[in-house]
Amino acid sequence: MIIGVRRLEALPREESLRLLGSTSLGRVVFTHLALPAIRPVNHIVENGKILIRTHMGSAIVSAVDGTGTVVAYEADMIDPGDHLGWSVIVVGKASLLTDPVEIARYQQVLQPWLSGTMDDVIAITTDMVDGFRLTGEQA
Amino acid sequence: MIIGVRRLEALPREESLRLLGSTSLGRVVFTHLALPAIRPVNHIVENGKILIRTHMGSAIVSAVDGTGTVVAYEADMIDPGDHLGWSVIVVGKASLLTDPVEIARYQQVLQPWLSGTMDDVIAITTDMVDGFRLTGEQA
Repeated sequence: MIIGVRRLEALPREESLRLLGSTSLGRVVFTHLALPAIRPVNHIVENGKILIRTHMGSAIVSAVDGTGTVVAYEADMIDPGDHLGWSVIVVGKASLLTDPVEIARYQQVLQPWLSGTMDDVIAITTDMVDGFRLTGEQA
Repeated sequence: MIIGVRRLEALPREESLRLLGSTSLGRVVFTHLALPAIRPVNHIVENGKILIRTHMGSAIVSAVDGTGTVVAYEADMIDPGDHLGWSVIVVGKASLLTDPVEIARYQQVLQPWLSGTMDDVIAITTDMVDGFRLTGEQA
């Protein structure tokens, strides 16, 4: 089967964040032991922030100065058959939540997929949002 | 619907590379302008290397000393409904192919999904391979 080549259509910020919030699986991209690292996680989007739960909080948020560590976050929904879909890439600052009330609330709404301790809740700001849609090429 | 918590089962290297080769969509993770960067791309796996075509070759492979730039590569197939599936993460050295015969061959077998120039073919070594499967928790 020959599949037509796809065109990239850039999406506005709001539409990109809406698509990101429409799925629960994404990938957090960070630097760990001086190497590029990526882990699939589940997320929610709330008030313009991405929230994830992880047991790797200290690895992801390595900065101790309180200003946050720059990470990337990616989610996509691309059909491997027809190559149509979308992808959203966010670059922002990740920080560990420390308020016990906030942590308890997100531990309720953000159920981890994996067994084991998932004690950390990380908030990622959405400073740079790049979303695109793969569409069929115009005739 | 309540979905059971999943257990991570580590996969051997060969099984991980087989799963990676069973799909055509992955994500290359690199550093660009001192920021973590990630791009969805399509790939093939051949002779223990991951091969991708891109127009971002010079951004991904920033090293000029010929030893390659360390990148991560990730692919997964996780059902957002039942949270079952697999994920494979590779860390290796990315280098631009320079042999015109090799480039021409991969430009044949590795059809880009996107319109526009995709002149670069990048090979990524599979130095570190971490694969896991999400399985239902044992009773």
